[in-house]
Amino acid sequence: MRISYLQVVVWLLCWPWLAWSGLPETAQGVGENGEHWQPDPMHEYWDPATYHRPERERMLGVFKEEECTECHRGVTPGIVKDWRASRHAQAVPPVGCPACHGEDHQKLTFPTPQSCGNCHPQRLAQMEEEKKFGFPSHALAMERAVDSKHFADKPKAEVAACLQCHSVASKCDSCHTRHRFDPAEARRPEACLTCHSGPPHPDDLAYFSSPHGQLYQKEGATWDWSKPLRKGNYPTPTCAYCHMKEGNHQVADKAVWKFGIREVNPKTAENEIKRKRWREICADCHPEETARGFFRELDAERQSTWKQLYGVEKILKSLRSDSLLSPAAAERPPYPMDWLARLLPRERIGFYEGQASAFYNVSAIERDYFDMWYFTNLGAYKGMAHGAKEMTQHFHKQLDDNARAIATTAEELRNREKTSKKIDLKPLWLEGEYTRFNRDHN
Amino acid sequence: MRISYLQVVVWLLCWPWLAWSGLPETAQGVGENGEHWQPDPMHEYWDPATYHRPERERMLGVFKEEECTECHRGVTPGIVKDWRASRHAQAVPPVGCPACHGEDHQKLTFPTPQSCGNCHPQRLAQMEEEKKFGFPSHALAMERAVDSKHFADKPKAEVAACLQCHSVASKCDSCHTRHRFDPAEARRPEACLTCHSGPPHPDDLAYFSSPHGQLYQKEGATWDWSKPLRKGNYPTPTCAYCHMKEGNHQVADKAVWKFGIREVNPKTAENEIKRKRWREICADCHPEETARGFFRELDAERQSTWKQLYGVEKILKSLRSDSLLSPAAAERPPYPMDWLARLLPRERIGFYEGQASAFYNVSAIERDYFDMWYFTNLGAYKGMAHGAKEMTQHFHKQLDDNARAIATTAEELRNREKTSKKIDLKPLWLEGEYTRFNRDHN
Amino acid sequence: MRISYLQVVVWLLCWPWLAWSGLPETAQGVGENGEHWQPDPMHEYWDPATYHRPERERMLGVFKEEECTECHRGVTPGIVKDWRASRHAQAVPPVGCPACHGEDHQKLTFPTPQSCGNCHPQRLAQMEEEKKFGFPSHALAMERAVDSKHFADKPKAEVAACLQCHSVASKCDSCHTRHRFDPAEARRPEACLTCHSGPPHPDDLAYFSSPHGQLYQKEGATWDWSKPLRKGNYPTPTCAYCHMKEGNHQVADKAVWKFGIREVNPKTAENEIKRKRWREICADCHPEETARGFFRELDAERQSTWKQLYGVEKILKSLRSDSLLSPAAAERPPYPMDWLARLLPRERIGFYEGQASAFYNVSAIERDYFDMWYFTNLGAYKGMAHGAKEMTQHFHKQLDDNARAIATTAEELRNREKTSKKIDLKPLWLEGEYTRFNRDHN
Repeated sequence: MRISYLQVVVWLLCWPWLAWSGLPETAQGVGENGEHWQPDPMHEYWDPATYHRPERERMLGVFKEEECTECHRGVTPGIVKDWRASRHAQAVPPVGCPACHGEDHQKLTFPTPQSCGNCHPQRLAQMEEEKKFGFPSHALAMERAVDSKHFADKPKAEVAACLQCHSVASKCDSCHTRHRFDPAEARRPEACLTCHSGPPHPDDLAYFSSPHGQLYQKEGATWDWSKPLRKGNYPTPTCAYCHMKEGNHQVADKAVWKFGIREVNPKTAENEIKRKRWREICADCHPEETARGFFRELDAERQSTWKQLYGVEKILKSLRSDSLLSPAAAERPPYPMDWLARLLPRERIGFYEGQASAFYNVSAIERDYFDMWYFTNLGAYKGMAHGAKEMTQHFHKQLDDNARAIATTAEELRNREKTSKKIDLKPLWLEGEYTRFNRDHN
Repeated sequence: MRISYLQVVVWLLCWPWLAWSGLPETAQGVGENGEHWQPDPMHEYWDPATYHRPERERMLGVFKEEECTECHRGVTPGIVKDWRASRHAQAVPPVGCPACHGEDHQKLTFPTPQSCGNCHPQRLAQMEEEKKFGFPSHALAMERAVDSKHFADKPKAEVAACLQCHSVASKCDSCHTRHRFDPAEARRPEACLTCHSGPPHPDDLAYFSSPHGQLYQKEGATWDWSKPLRKGNYPTPTCAYCHMKEGNHQVADKAVWKFGIREVNPKTAENEIKRKRWREICADCHPEETARGFFRELDAERQSTWKQLYGVEKILKSLRSDSLLSPAAAERPPYPMDWLARLLPRERIGFYEGQASAFYNVSAIERDYFDMWYFTNLGAYKGMAHGAKEMTQHFHKQLDDNARAIATTAEELRNREKTSKKIDLKPLWLEGEYTRFNRDHN
Repeated sequence: MRISYLQVVVWLLCWPWLAWSGLPETAQGVGENGEHWQPDPMHEYWDPATYHRPERERMLGVFKEEECTECHRGVTPGIVKDWRASRHAQAVPPVGCPACHGEDHQKLTFPTPQSCGNCHPQRLAQMEEEKKFGFPSHALAMERAVDSKHFADKPKAEVAACLQCHSVASKCDSCHTRHRFDPAEARRPEACLTCHSGPPHPDDLAYFSSPHGQLYQKEGATWDWSKPLRKGNYPTPTCAYCHMKEGNHQVADKAVWKFGIREVNPKTAENEIKRKRWREICADCHPEETARGFFRELDAERQSTWKQLYGVEKILKSLRSDSLLSPAAAERPPYPMDWLARLLPRERIGFYEGQASAFYNVSAIERDYFDMWYFTNLGAYKGMAHGAKEMTQHFHKQLDDNARAIATTAEELRNREKTSKKIDLKPLWLEGEYTRFNRDHN
């Protein structure tokens, strides 16, 4: 290879760019509060459309698929095997490495929903359609994460893992693992559980401890997962069977209860339509009347749980009326981006007042109520909605425990007020260790 | 079809019955406290013998098996496939839909243990035989649930999920999922875990985290589950292998420890016989001496844990002697059906005093002890009894934590007594938010 | 069979030895604190080299492999089947029962790493090599358990389960289950999880909720586990793939973070070498640059979490300076073997001061910090290190909760000090119920 003068000049001009590797230290967050946070280097994987910059690689050159796989067969044989077993490889012509990553090893790209949508426009359109149903949705997950105030306020290392799940909005390999992209794999419940697990969305527990999940665990290994998610094809439903029937990538048009974290009227015209959609899926196997009965039982559970939540919320509101919450709303260090809260501090009890922005930074008893409302209540809902008996009962017990603990603490606060009017509790939050710690390390 | 005058008259007389669909709003609970609770619509699934009423269906007519499956092949193909793959379908003549559900689509029935027992009398007899061993037992599970005072006292929606498991007494499809009813399926541990999981009976954790369960998880998918549960047929035991050997549906005659929630003398003549039965099962694979060693280790664990429990119980009893438990027994709102407790209020510390009726409605520290005694202690027992090392250690740590927390709270109560004799703590429980809430929503 | 006089004499002389069965009641612990504890009968299984004594069996005689299996085919058919399916059985000549257990049924032995090492010297050498890397290690696990002060101080029945895992140092069947000893089995993650699960090492959660574990759960049942753990052989790594690549039984030479429970400088020369070893494994499937990014994210997570831990540690140290920790170091009942602590009592806050010996026996708030530092912090580390998103986020939330709870308690302690100088809190720990209980039952 001969190098011309022109090439040398181009190279010299490009040098600063080539020398730069990965995301610059000065990269800025995006979204409503983008000026308040900085992405870390992995962010380019969680949101490639926004953050990925081609890195300067040791490997130079422009390659065709055969050349890519010839070399990677030795370097990373697993992904080559996976791709060769994929429908992408069997297509004529094959959808090879360059189709998704580009040909130039100096400018490799990561696929995004938009680039996958070039060949799979219907799936992209379905996912995009979710946006009109509001949150929760896959399509809005990323902006939901980065736009929340507590995300921007917390040390980035503490919330880095949020993005690992919420990146479902920004890339397709959250569910379709590289490089086989086999629908057979994405149909199985484990495709959902790396994200849908843990306290904020314990769907793994809900499914695996339900009779549906029980059957899957016993016999799922022997089923033919190449079949589409259609009536009669599977002995028991999986996550995707009910939530993504026939592969529909829009999962929002049956969402009645929205995680159970806000009280909904199940009898609105819109919700009646959504429930009918659910019953039609249940009726693939069960009498529709059974489904109706289960939904009535869920309605009753929700109503009863919300009565309990409102009862406890009343305890908190009464403490607030008597100025026993410390710090009071006006005393809390506001979020950096919350100029309005500086002028008009808002209380944060319950869904309409607090929501996700109350993840921390409130008095201990408010946080206890947040945990009860969000995590415990949500767990009870998820259990009941999926027929996970033990899970439901576990979270109902925990709701009782939460209510008892909050009532006990409330009584303590009232008694302390009576006996020791002069104790100043504010320093803990305003000048004390915890606030200082938070402010120092933010 | 010609309609006679007689048919019209019969129809008119029957009209009110035909028009009625599902469980009437005024349905009454059954059992000791039946007058205090009402079943919800799903109750007819959990206890069909008592509550199922044939519904007026849109579909009229009397059908033979071929007609049922001909139509349901399109309506609910999955269950038809399952039945066709079953031994019921292969029998000559087949045990078809009408055998279990009746022929008249207006009078469809749900099978019960009694109706299944028509063909499987030995299995029914085994299950019935459990009753003579007392609780815990599958055969008594339903009455155990609905007869407990806290079940009758709580909002029904909060305890609905209890019945979903305790209905194991009332129907066979808790373990044998519809419509294949394949013993191969019921032999696998997942058949047990939809109920035997979660804090009150964490048997899923106990099995899956034991060396037995470890082997099952690795290789169970390749074993021949059509083999009976007999010596040499399986590389490792499952729940049913030890607890229902050779398919015995009576699981009580080896029950020495009864969940670990009461102290038992392992050396009574009766328990020595039961332990011998256990050792004989262990000896299918292990030297009997190893089994003996494990049981001695379990004995030691139980003895040590009960010492700890009694130590903490003593703390509570000493608080009670000094009138530091609030509410005191006489101050608690009694259960509605508990006329005796109005006259002679009983304390509820520990097994003999409190038991399951203390699930709530007691002072905070009594409830903490309840949780320690019931959930933590039971978890330690289950772990030790199943060789689940990490589980055992986890619950032993938690027993220490519980003991420490209760001792700390007890000390707080004593110190508060010294410093602030005049604080009246009663309002929390007697007039405060929590009691008001409970009374309002019951 | 004729019995000679000599045999009778020998038998009479040996009688006391033959009559003795199992571990003597007076057996003594081993190790640093051996004089303070006694092993229970099962200890001979957890540490056969030290404790196993051949038992007097009902079965007399000296046997060859054919005779062993001929009889055991009926007595314990499962283990005979397992052995017959093993490579031991297929070897020429077969490695039969006597090779591991001896020939004399009165002197049966349990295999140890040393006896297995007779045929597998490389594996034994690898395991032994671990010792030079310090703890954590498999090879040092047993002495780590029995040498810790809290092990010796606690009732033996409470810590018996510790040995069931830490016995990994003393025998090979912790990972290779008897009697097939098939590497195919040991390669699967479940081989690790009977020990690597639960709060002190939640690796089951870390793996199964990671994208790697998700893929394993979906499709692992169909993979060819007879293949060695080598690049390209598996679609996703398992525990052993990364930690024991190509079957290396030395798992310590990449251990940078040591469970996350001590702060490490990831940039030391030694750690850079270890990280490079990690990256080389990641690079079997991923661009090395991605691995580098993940490690940087892990560095940031660790740094942020340690800031939080140090912040909370400061709260405790400030309480100590103001003599608000009760019991103070000098007031705690020291461990029986801790003569130095009687003279020079040491505080136990944080890693360098407290470590594992602070498992109990400290003030409530110190124990809360211990739990935060050990269990919560370790969980956050394990989640982040394995790409288990939900797990990481769950433990980060819990770190916040722990910090809040400790700050709240600290403030309570300060306020109580202000209002009620005269309350003597010492009795709880020094003369109160908890200490009495612990001293009585130790």
